[in-house]
Amino acid sequence: MTVYFIGAGVGGIDYLTVKAHGLICRADVIIYDALADDRILDLAPAHCLQLNVGKRGGRVSTPQDKINQLLVDYGQSHNLVIRLKSGDPGIFGRLTPELRAIAPYNISYELIPGISSILAAPLLAGWNLTEKTHGKHFVVISGHNPHSLDWLILAQIDTIVIVMGAKNLSLIIDCLIRGDRHPHSPITIIKNAGRTNQQIWQGTLDNIMEKTKGLALSPCVIVIGNLIIN
Amino acid sequence: MTVYFIGAGVGGIDYLTVKAHGLICRADVIIYDALADDRILDLAPAHCLQLNVGKRGGRVSTPQDKINQLLVDYGQSHNLVIRLKSGDPGIFGRLTPELRAIAPYNISYELIPGISSILAAPLLAGWNLTEKTHGKHFVVISGHNPHSLDWLILAQIDTIVIVMGAKNLSLIIDCLIRGDRHPHSPITIIKNAGRTNQQIWQGTLDNIMEKTKGLALSPCVIVIGNLIIN
Repeated sequence: MTVYFIGAGVGGIDYLTVKAHGLICRADVIIYDALADDRILDLAPAHCLQLNVGKRGGRVSTPQDKINQLLVDYGQSHNLVIRLKSGDPGIFGRLTPELRAIAPYNISYELIPGISSILAAPLLAGWNLTEKTHGKHFVVISGHNPHSLDWLILAQIDTIVIVMGAKNLSLIIDCLIRGDRHPHSPITIIKNAGRTNQQIWQGTLDNIMEKTKGLALSPCVIVIGNLIIN
Repeated sequence: MTVYFIGAGVGGIDYLTVKAHGLICRADVIIYDALADDRILDLAPAHCLQLNVGKRGGRVSTPQDKINQLLVDYGQSHNLVIRLKSGDPGIFGRLTPELRAIAPYNISYELIPGISSILAAPLLAGWNLTEKTHGKHFVVISGHNPHSLDWLILAQIDTIVIVMGAKNLSLIIDCLIRGDRHPHSPITIIKNAGRTNQQIWQGTLDNIMEKTKGLALSPCVIVIGNLIIN
């Protein structure tokens, strides 16, 4: 009996790993977050129990304690249990509380990486995050709670990749400009990377709020800095 | 006729994407870098032409101009051409010069993300790079040319992930300490992530050189900062 913490990647079945694909095809239970493409769940066998515990935007989600309990219960009663998370399970994926919850029960588990939108969104939109001559480094941050971050340091990094930043975009821009980032710095927003409904907005820190006024940007990856146009 | 720039991910076939797997199985030409696992190439059909242009460590590699020319030639003469790169093609993968080389010939191309060791190495070794309460951000850098980086800024980021840093490790540590990083800061080196020969070393900035003296560390991912033990 094993619980597999699997990254579902971005988009549909195409961006699953071969290993994730094989396990989903044999799963007894799948406890899943909001996925880019529900067709991933259609891979599971007919007997597979599928539990949606995801949240997206304003929708009510399953409390973390309840998810933990499901993992403990099914991890002890079923053979092949999958905890399916968007992107990569190690990146802002609430993995730690779930692993800590199952630890006292000696439930065996395996961590399986997935394609993360952090790296894939720019690529699928046609850009590079890095290159030899410029873009030599980038910082990845969660925009969930901007006040907890030191923007005086972050604002100095050439390329900044932000996930979960749509809701706080205006505040993040204020923090960056107060951290001495130039108001004309380029910003790119990539929504639904790798899917047929992918959308992209480009502007500068001082005009992107106007350019995206009233639009629903989530789920998106936000890149501040010069993306390398190939 | 299309050239697919594909990330081969880490490890073997398991960590290919479903899309990459399907394309490799139908490839006419594969131009590949040093791969984690050559069994990936065994997926290709019998007629497929396989060209090794990779470099690793001190070995002689194919000059970039020659690789570019191969892409231009095969991209015009063969139907399904794959440029197979380790990890993710957008991350320090010399993608830009290759895309610019084929651009004048109107060769169609597609970019296909892969599992990058940047995110996967810590996960496969059992740690998280990020979590809600700490590890709220991380910076990714190439250790190829440490003198080109601003270590006064980088040293202040909680978690630093370095690829291609084995050769310059001693210099990188000097730069970090001169950038005011505490000499007792934890450092983790993960070699061959996700493979059967995965190896891990842990220490602090002031003792890791002694702990790894005389050992071949490449290819590895180096993490400076507290990894989250699940």
